[in-house]
Amino acid sequence: MSSHFADRLCEAVKSKKTSLVVGLDPVYSRLPSSIKNHRDMNDEFDAAAAVDAIFDFCTQTMRIIAPMVPAVKINIAFFEKYLWEGIETYYSLIAEADDLGMEVIGDVKRGDIGHTAELYAAAHLQNPELVGLEDTLAPDAITINGYTGTDGIKPFADIAAQQGKGVFVLVRTSNPSAAAIQDFADSDGQRMYEKVAEIVNEIAGKPERIGDNGYSNVGMVVGGTTTEITAELRQKYQRVWFLVPGYGSQGASAEDCVRFCKPDGTGALINASRSIIYAYERPQYKEQFGEDWKRCIEQAVVDAKIELANAMQTLI
Amino acid sequence: MSSHFADRLCEAVKSKKTSLVVGLDPVYSRLPSSIKNHRDMNDEFDAAAAVDAIFDFCTQTMRIIAPMVPAVKINIAFFEKYLWEGIETYYSLIAEADDLGMEVIGDVKRGDIGHTAELYAAAHLQNPELVGLEDTLAPDAITINGYTGTDGIKPFADIAAQQGKGVFVLVRTSNPSAAAIQDFADSDGQRMYEKVAEIVNEIAGKPERIGDNGYSNVGMVVGGTTTEITAELRQKYQRVWFLVPGYGSQGASAEDCVRFCKPDGTGALINASRSIIYAYERPQYKEQFGEDWKRCIEQAVVDAKIELANAMQTLI
Repeated sequence: MSSHFADRLCEAVKSKKTSLVVGLDPVYSRLPSSIKNHRDMNDEFDAAAAVDAIFDFCTQTMRIIAPMVPAVKINIAFFEKYLWEGIETYYSLIAEADDLGMEVIGDVKRGDIGHTAELYAAAHLQNPELVGLEDTLAPDAITINGYTGTDGIKPFADIAAQQGKGVFVLVRTSNPSAAAIQDFADSDGQRMYEKVAEIVNEIAGKPERIGDNGYSNVGMVVGGTTTEITAELRQKYQRVWFLVPGYGSQGASAEDCVRFCKPDGTGALINASRSIIYAYERPQYKEQFGEDWKRCIEQAVVDAKIELANAMQTLI
Repeated sequence: MSSHFADRLCEAVKSKKTSLVVGLDPVYSRLPSSIKNHRDMNDEFDAAAAVDAIFDFCTQTMRIIAPMVPAVKINIAFFEKYLWEGIETYYSLIAEADDLGMEVIGDVKRGDIGHTAELYAAAHLQNPELVGLEDTLAPDAITINGYTGTDGIKPFADIAAQQGKGVFVLVRTSNPSAAAIQDFADSDGQRMYEKVAEIVNEIAGKPERIGDNGYSNVGMVVGGTTTEITAELRQKYQRVWFLVPGYGSQGASAEDCVRFCKPDGTGALINASRSIIYAYERPQYKEQFGEDWKRCIEQAVVDAKIELANAMQTLI
């Protein structure tokens, strides 16, 4: 396995023949009843029971998706709800995902300056060399917030590079109010997100960050529904991987999302979370597979892969 | 004690007669040798021993500062280094600070959109109603990153308000590279940070968020070294509290920082971290008090309070 994060992504995307990434955003109340009911303590309000059930669900889900997708994205907010119990579960899942051969993206959106940024980067990207925590694995990449500029991004990029890992910096999000800040334009018409992209690209483009496949270990997060800017960013920043949230439940179409990919299918990870992990709530799968929630998830991944592949065909 | 965060801040600042806040950024290697040496397992590389020593140091430090300052700011990055062990310690310190009667600011800089923002807000501002975690206290306020705009800020502001708590949104940081993003100006000369401040103020200014003292539960983080913009922000946004990092080790002078205060001394929390908690490393205190690290910290707080009070006198 390559020691450069971007090369590992290329290999994984090619071997799984898809840029689809599954996001784990697990909410106890939505877990399949067969998981909730078999718990010794079936109680949403008992921290230990809840994280236990969530761990079970996520592990089983990852076993289904691992042969089919290159990576899994784990959203730490859903674990921070359970404080330290949740954080321990988050790290347990990273180890499971790693065992299953997937790249793991920790969706943590950390950001700060100076020494604090270094600490966050080390905490989230380095395997801890601490007695008591020595079996813990950090994810292969994390998401970060770059509002503080180069000083805030570089510590993450540097530590990631040392560790053969990656970072994805928030550039343009797809929520309704994002435009007020991220589309703020200067007198030349350059927008804030374009400026952030420029700063990220400057860091990403350093020769020592580029892997054998021509990609940097520093990527960008750009929402899938922002179709008007996709082509431009893909064209302009050839060396970055895009992490594209919003496919599925958040309303970005396969056609919108595949525009972030290069013709060979590399260059973008297209993330679907709820539409996959809660596939058993969707009538189309429920009718077909009944209570077999795993089969629903499996089929949802198959369908999403086909949809993205078809969209990719149309594009090329 | 008032049930509105901003009112509690007013009371605390008036009763302690200072806007000085102490930041806890504890690094094991810098702890006083008397703490490191008395640990059963004196080992920086043993997670349990390290968090135990850090907890001890922070607790003793808080006992010294509690009678003198209105609030303590705890930087979670220094605890995330120890993963779930660190998070448990972070929450233990919040409970200690609360016992000691200080307002507690969790410096967590979280930020996301939609449901994820709600989850972060609940995790960091609500006392968990979960068996196993029921004795845990969340901080009185947290810092957040508002790059995603109103959608990303409102969930935090709303949950904070419901809980009688507060949020401080990053507006202008004082690191060297901040200007490239935060001073990015539109064709009318409005800068990014001014736009963010405007958005924050719109949320902060809602009548239901304003306490008896005229302040909102939503405040702004503005670096102490950004002197040219201080007066303007203070003048323009009468209803917000500013959290001002950078006093002391980061180079902002007392004169720079007190400009964020209103004449009655309210309206700003001026944070000093390393210059206080590592006062025993500073020659001026070391020479005077030798190995008595607690006396060094105490004197550093006294001196900082005097310096700020003098600067305030000059200003008025």
